Amino acid sequence: MTKQKINIVKIGGNIINNETLLNSFLKDFSELDGPKILVHGGGKRASEISSSMGIAPKMTSGRRITDSATLEVVTMVYAGLLNKKITARLQQNNCNAIGLSGTDANCILAHKRIVKDIDYGFAGDIDAINTASITVFLQHKMTPVFCAITHDKKGQLLNTNADTIATEIAIAMSNLYEVELNYVFELKGVLARIGDKDSVITQINSNKYEQLIEQGVISEGMIPKLHNCFNALEKGVFIVKIGDETLIKSSKNVHTTLSLK
Amino acid sequence: MTKQKINIVKIGGNIINNETLLNSFLKDFSELDGPKILVHGGGKRASEISSSMGIAPKMTSGRRITDSATLEVVTMVYAGLLNKKITARLQQNNCNAIGLSGTDANCILAHKRIVKDIDYGFAGDIDAINTASITVFLQHKMTPVFCAITHDKKGQLLNTNADTIATEIAIAMSNLYEVELNYVFELKGVLARIGDKDSVITQINSNKYEQLIEQGVISEGMIPKLHNCFNALEKGVFIVKIGDETLIKSSKNVHTTLSLK
Repeated sequence: MTKQKINIVKIGGNIINNETLLNSFLKDFSELDGPKILVHGGGKRASEISSSMGIAPKMTSGRRITDSATLEVVTMVYAGLLNKKITARLQQNNCNAIGLSGTDANCILAHKRIVKDIDYGFAGDIDAINTASITVFLQHKMTPVFCAITHDKKGQLLNTNADTIATEIAIAMSNLYEVELNYVFELKGVLARIGDKDSVITQINSNKYEQLIEQGVISEGMIPKLHNCFNALEKGVFIVKIGDETLIKSSKNVHTTLSLK
Repeated sequence: MTKQKINIVKIGGNIINNETLLNSFLKDFSELDGPKILVHGGGKRASEISSSMGIAPKMTSGRRITDSATLEVVTMVYAGLLNKKITARLQQNNCNAIGLSGTDANCILAHKRIVKDIDYGFAGDIDAINTASITVFLQHKMTPVFCAITHDKKGQLLNTNADTIATEIAIAMSNLYEVELNYVFELKGVLARIGDKDSVITQINSNKYEQLIEQGVISEGMIPKLHNCFNALEKGVFIVKIGDETLIKSSKNVHTTLSLK
């Protein structure tokens, strides 16, 4: 039997922080046919609110160090402010969204990252995605909207990278669905020349990916993102796309499609 | 056919703000048999965080005036910080909790309160409880945990009194279940003598309720709470109880039971 298609879409700060882009994107997302899941980040807003409360954001190599005060802030901002704002706007567009963190219905189980060189604090690495719970929502025509908070089932909430959450959900759901994973970010796709925003490489397979890294074409910030994408493809995700906020509008927009071969 | 029993429990700031009480209560709640729903407030924590962000809480007659900055704070604190903390602790106790606001799966539809004498801002008065969505969760052994945020399905989140949310959910669910509604607060029950915390009136029916108001026994703060309770009973809720954090432990604890006759 052919599997039913599902769209999993990850959005980041560039859309969330821009009211016009966000409304336009959420309208497009609502119009996507069939089952779908949204995963959102929101780091910038968390940093702003953290600062307004006198808690200085702590970052190392672009990753947040989550001490207990910071965990409270990201839980408030990701699971509260942003998740409910996005859910309310999707409801407005007649998409029956349900905002979730990883602790809700035990959807995403994680453990506190083990300290090696750097202590990331309450950062969570994912152990399991609860496909049974997620499937209940999908079968009742609800659209899960995940923020970047997980838990360890020992009562501890954890801060988890939203790209990783999208990847792990996509991999887990690919046992049940034909998964299309869409990463929406600030560029039209992977660029051949940094600074030339129209130099999108429209197709990248595993071989080309390695070539591009060797040639230094793929910049440092893109490497973990693409690593996530190829990891997803290797573990059963049907197709992965990267592009700007028009990515889910129609297949005619310029973007990068990733494939194994 | 006899209806299945369901427990609906409302907790307020006195439990949420006390770590020991909260953990003990959530353990007891997890051990309740059968379907159940938790509704929580959390005003005090919202006021603290609001102040730390330089947003002065605005109250009138004990009710919060919800301007747009305050709405952001209560959305963060109720739907984020407190809702996810409670949900994670219930998960720890093997209760498959799912934290929800009224916008999630369109569970609680409200409208912005119409301005008469006082403009309450983004305060929401409830129009409808989505029993179909709530029933999906219950049928899959999930325990809904509602915070005091609703929406208008036009993209607007709204701040709604948690007692009212508990009452309205209890009334709506009584079409499908035999509902026991439990209000947990700081006292052992309705008191015969203010200041004597052991003078609990264990049974109050409609007639006695009117007598107690006439006699001035029921204090100003208790009147809206008891009004909510009798409203619930009149609209089909099977039983309503008021008491302290031991209310749900066993029927032997002192508390007030409310009934129509």
